[in-house]
Amino acid sequence: MEHPENSGEYKGLAVNKGIEQPSSVNPYLKRKPKKRQLSVAEFVEGIVKGDITILSQAVTLVESVKPEHQVVAQEVIEKCLPHSGNSVRIGISGVPGAGKSTSIDVFGLHVLEKGGKLAVLAIDPSSERSKGSILGDKTRMEQLSVHPKSFIRPSPSAGSLGGVARKTRETIVLCEAAGFDKIFVETVGVGQSETAVHSMVDFFLLIQLAGTGDELQGIKRGIMEMADGIVINKADGDNLERAKLAATQFRNALHLFPAPESGWTPQVLTYSGFYNIGVKEIWDMIYEYIDFVKTNGYFEYRRNEQSKYWMYETINEQLRDSFYHNPKIEAMLLEKEQQVLQGNLTSFIAAKSLLDTYFADLKRDD
Amino acid sequence: MEHPENSGEYKGLAVNKGIEQPSSVNPYLKRKPKKRQLSVAEFVEGIVKGDITILSQAVTLVESVKPEHQVVAQEVIEKCLPHSGNSVRIGISGVPGAGKSTSIDVFGLHVLEKGGKLAVLAIDPSSERSKGSILGDKTRMEQLSVHPKSFIRPSPSAGSLGGVARKTRETIVLCEAAGFDKIFVETVGVGQSETAVHSMVDFFLLIQLAGTGDELQGIKRGIMEMADGIVINKADGDNLERAKLAATQFRNALHLFPAPESGWTPQVLTYSGFYNIGVKEIWDMIYEYIDFVKTNGYFEYRRNEQSKYWMYETINEQLRDSFYHNPKIEAMLLEKEQQVLQGNLTSFIAAKSLLDTYFADLKRDD
Repeated sequence: MEHPENSGEYKGLAVNKGIEQPSSVNPYLKRKPKKRQLSVAEFVEGIVKGDITILSQAVTLVESVKPEHQVVAQEVIEKCLPHSGNSVRIGISGVPGAGKSTSIDVFGLHVLEKGGKLAVLAIDPSSERSKGSILGDKTRMEQLSVHPKSFIRPSPSAGSLGGVARKTRETIVLCEAAGFDKIFVETVGVGQSETAVHSMVDFFLLIQLAGTGDELQGIKRGIMEMADGIVINKADGDNLERAKLAATQFRNALHLFPAPESGWTPQVLTYSGFYNIGVKEIWDMIYEYIDFVKTNGYFEYRRNEQSKYWMYETINEQLRDSFYHNPKIEAMLLEKEQQVLQGNLTSFIAAKSLLDTYFADLKRDD
Repeated sequence: MEHPENSGEYKGLAVNKGIEQPSSVNPYLKRKPKKRQLSVAEFVEGIVKGDITILSQAVTLVESVKPEHQVVAQEVIEKCLPHSGNSVRIGISGVPGAGKSTSIDVFGLHVLEKGGKLAVLAIDPSSERSKGSILGDKTRMEQLSVHPKSFIRPSPSAGSLGGVARKTRETIVLCEAAGFDKIFVETVGVGQSETAVHSMVDFFLLIQLAGTGDELQGIKRGIMEMADGIVINKADGDNLERAKLAATQFRNALHLFPAPESGWTPQVLTYSGFYNIGVKEIWDMIYEYIDFVKTNGYFEYRRNEQSKYWMYETINEQLRDSFYHNPKIEAMLLEKEQQVLQGNLTSFIAAKSLLDTYFADLKRDD
């Protein structure tokens, strides 16, 4: 749990020790003085003004695992809430190689043509078997990363999918309070992160590929069922016909699913992110969806259902936090885990003894 | 939370009220007298003796949501643990229509030919969008359901996937203590339940289909990655060639995944559950796998890792239980949820007020 900067171990370049320097100011000040952390009011004021530096710092606090940071972060979020909600939130999913970064780059420029501000966030879970990094390199969004009206933020890296997703959702609140009226939430299309993204966006866009030689690429019922729109990338050159064929197949496949609650029939379109073909049509479709669900009331209904979902997610995560950050639990958890791993203790009995300790400690606590 | 049998509402056939009957025995006894519940010692003794009736009753207790049942159930499980573990646990997954029931029927008869006892359990999560029922109808396993050495138990129906899965895992303990040396855990191949099943079995078998006209059927990277073996059903008659082609495609697809930790290369076979073709080859493969991982130590390693996983799952579920069954929380939860749904309260603030109430109550509690 210790932050690297508080650790005695030096991980960077090896440097020969020089002679001891006389202290210049305060002999007790052993480290470079930190920048003073802003107060909650300063954070909120800066965010609402649209100050990107302060927004960034606030997101860093949201992502921090330190309890003292979390206290401030939660207060900032609470005060930003009345300023939030006025955006269109788009989830964008696709397997690695589907061309998400290029697509988001051109999608972003397209939506910014009409004015407004765009925040690009990400949820990047560590899957059980393989780890994928997305948005790790802003430079993959060449144009958007230097656009004055865009804010690109990689995925929070620490913790469970639930924790990562919660932080992304809290970041949406801050971005909206900072005047971002378009939010993209990117995720990699191989895990359970789509459900998390789906639970925080108004429109869920699934990027697919055709003609990659294997039909397995990203074809997942669960994800397809969540999609409000499916777009086949790389519909250009030799690949155009295959993309069109894939679109037909996806359209047919969508008929297998129950009709979505929204009353909207998910559309399947082809485009080329690289050559910027068909991008306008995608966004016309998305705007049409937004109009449609704002008219029939589903937009608000979905947001409220999402709020309910997040109420429960927040509760469940904080219950876990309280347990796993309890000092008595921290002191004994690894030992119990080892005993279980070595087969000296069953999972049930280990869990019971940890839970008994925790609840006894909560009662004793002042 | 109220159990249907305690509810005043009558849900069955409408019956005309007759005249009041004089009480025959005890005027205070308003319902049919219940069978006395067995003591923990009686349960354990019965289970270890292999008494199926007592085993069934114990599983019912495990599945009950009543706290007083849970107390007894947990004690029974604890006392059964030393008698458990001596089985081979096989997870069997496949989308609806893949022929799981028929396959399990013939698989079951095949493994029982060598002696021993087989328990067939299930995990049937309620997916977000669609609900599917498996094992609901024992009669779909025509031969196995009347086999004297088999025990078929449908999925626990109440609660979250985590809760359902935990109960299934606990049922495995009871079945093993009752001498069942082969455990099948069935699940429907459309949700996240595969991860849960994978976390409690030694071998994960994925049933697939070819030649259904669409290539989308159950082809999911995440699930394929978990499979120790993939078997293509309905490899018979006109469908044989397509099944063989599908097997080749699956074999190629498996090369895309990282090598499994077990050191075992997942096999792809074709078979026909209906015509009982190729079933022996599947089980030869599974037994070969078991020998392989018992020799290289992965069998024990995987079981220990699963125990660790279940330690954490048990903790997390009981933390939630403690919260959601807290009387103060039960009294205010729905109101908060409604306020959130109506947009009068944000999810964060609702969660915070509930959590504050809960922790204050825990401290006050004696």
